[in-house]
Amino acid sequence: MSKYAIAIHGGAGTILKSKMTAEKEEEYKTALSEALMIGENILKDKGTAIDAVEAAVRSLEDCHLFNAGKGSVFNSKGGHEMDASIMEGKMKNAGAVATVTGVKNPITLARKVMEKSDHVFLVGEGVEEFARLHNLEFVDNDYFYDEFRFNQWQEIKDSDSFQLDHSDEKKEQKFGTVGAVALDMEGNLAAATSTGGMTNKKFGRIGDSSIIGAGTYANNDTCAISCTGSGEFFIRNVVAYDVSCLMEFKGMSLADASDEVINKRLLEINGDGGLIAVDANGNVALPFNTEGMYRAYAKSNGESAVEIYGDKK
Amino acid sequence: MSKYAIAIHGGAGTILKSKMTAEKEEEYKTALSEALMIGENILKDKGTAIDAVEAAVRSLEDCHLFNAGKGSVFNSKGGHEMDASIMEGKMKNAGAVATVTGVKNPITLARKVMEKSDHVFLVGEGVEEFARLHNLEFVDNDYFYDEFRFNQWQEIKDSDSFQLDHSDEKKEQKFGTVGAVALDMEGNLAAATSTGGMTNKKFGRIGDSSIIGAGTYANNDTCAISCTGSGEFFIRNVVAYDVSCLMEFKGMSLADASDEVINKRLLEINGDGGLIAVDANGNVALPFNTEGMYRAYAKSNGESAVEIYGDKK
Repeated sequence: MSKYAIAIHGGAGTILKSKMTAEKEEEYKTALSEALMIGENILKDKGTAIDAVEAAVRSLEDCHLFNAGKGSVFNSKGGHEMDASIMEGKMKNAGAVATVTGVKNPITLARKVMEKSDHVFLVGEGVEEFARLHNLEFVDNDYFYDEFRFNQWQEIKDSDSFQLDHSDEKKEQKFGTVGAVALDMEGNLAAATSTGGMTNKKFGRIGDSSIIGAGTYANNDTCAISCTGSGEFFIRNVVAYDVSCLMEFKGMSLADASDEVINKRLLEINGDGGLIAVDANGNVALPFNTEGMYRAYAKSNGESAVEIYGDKK
Repeated sequence: MSKYAIAIHGGAGTILKSKMTAEKEEEYKTALSEALMIGENILKDKGTAIDAVEAAVRSLEDCHLFNAGKGSVFNSKGGHEMDASIMEGKMKNAGAVATVTGVKNPITLARKVMEKSDHVFLVGEGVEEFARLHNLEFVDNDYFYDEFRFNQWQEIKDSDSFQLDHSDEKKEQKFGTVGAVALDMEGNLAAATSTGGMTNKKFGRIGDSSIIGAGTYANNDTCAISCTGSGEFFIRNVVAYDVSCLMEFKGMSLADASDEVINKRLLEINGDGGLIAVDANGNVALPFNTEGMYRAYAKSNGESAVEIYGDKK
């Protein structure tokens, strides 16, 4: 019998129940449920994994709560530079974009790069040219305005500081990179990740979200992965592909491989964050080594959950 | 006894002896020998692997023959956008830059990112700001002018074509991405890669050269790798890290792992190119699945070679 499975995340970090109001928690859970449902409905209707992950991530990009698309943080110049990537596991085709400005849904742009160009990775002004050529939806800078984000930036904009959206203990940092992974009924896997990066980021900094192998990876023979956390560590450890390699070369299960990568190998270099993963059998893993990770999943057997906190809550 | 080893490359591709003049061949071999010697002397004097790979790559960047630094190809706008990355194997620190313009030695900029920033990957105008802050040497656009490169570009600039520096059969494409890998007497590994990308490239296209895990990787427990070839395929297959994973998770030798990745796994997705690799025991591997690869290596046991063609010559 054909199975499907989908998992999504809205970022990992210092997310403590003690600092959350019931309303805020509800708002997050509603947003996660909605994105999950959009993705799941596609899979239920025999749609493709790549359509499901794109649609789920678009939904999260359109929500101001997460640091991607509409909710993207401010960079050091008061602008919004977004990164995204997408990969499908059958042919291992991929598309990635970085330092994109003005595009409403960077994940859709990443998919266009995958499907309509000979390239995998486009950045900067060049990718905007490509986006216009392919009629991507552009929005004004105002679209990305969010009072909370703006205040976050105001506090540090004249300093050399930058901050991960989820790593500042002083303020409630409940935002984060978003992502989705899915298995469709044809047995195809796909993964997608999208982010606004770090508040007050400078110098055209790119994290792992747009790096195939680091933040995003999909291979029908192993798994589909989307990561979130301190991007630099995820790049140095090639985290997403690491999970796939442990499965392919060591024969580990999805759960064991994901756990090894996040709770052992990443911690060895003091990297914090988490990932969502799905394999060709419809197993789902959602490990993180932080206090919490906005996450949700659903499977064709009816199993599903929407969660925020971890054991450390 | 302490061993050292170093290997360098100047690109892989359609390099046929039948199309090469004796003078041209001599010119390439001299340039490769010089870069190799510069790197080897550092290792002989008990210098570090990271210093050796940076110096060797700088030497190749300063030579007009290779597609990196001075010899960088023209992009669709008649400019030169360069990508580079560097990684050291002890702490697995890394630095990468992409779409850099005007900087004489992008590999040195990548090293500055590794050592002087909290980030791994910087791109575009932002990275130039960072370069000025750290007093990197800038050069005029004229510095990058090369008649051969210019003519390459003129032939295709009004088309939608772009070309890999090494993949056009019609013209003699003897140029290429450059890279170096080294083991120093302390047992530390390092890898570095630098490129001007593809002639007539558009849309801020980035290949694998600046992607940690794809074009460059170093880990003292396994190997140091620098790749060259059709970047999109190297990104999708996470080639550099793939070699490391085959060694770490399957216990393969450097030679077997490198061969498996280039001559089997990369070919499965029709990817062409090669890589240079060194492990902690001073073994060197230089596999490629193209007609040739500009390459050279030297070991503390006196073994060394400077080569261009492959079996298909």
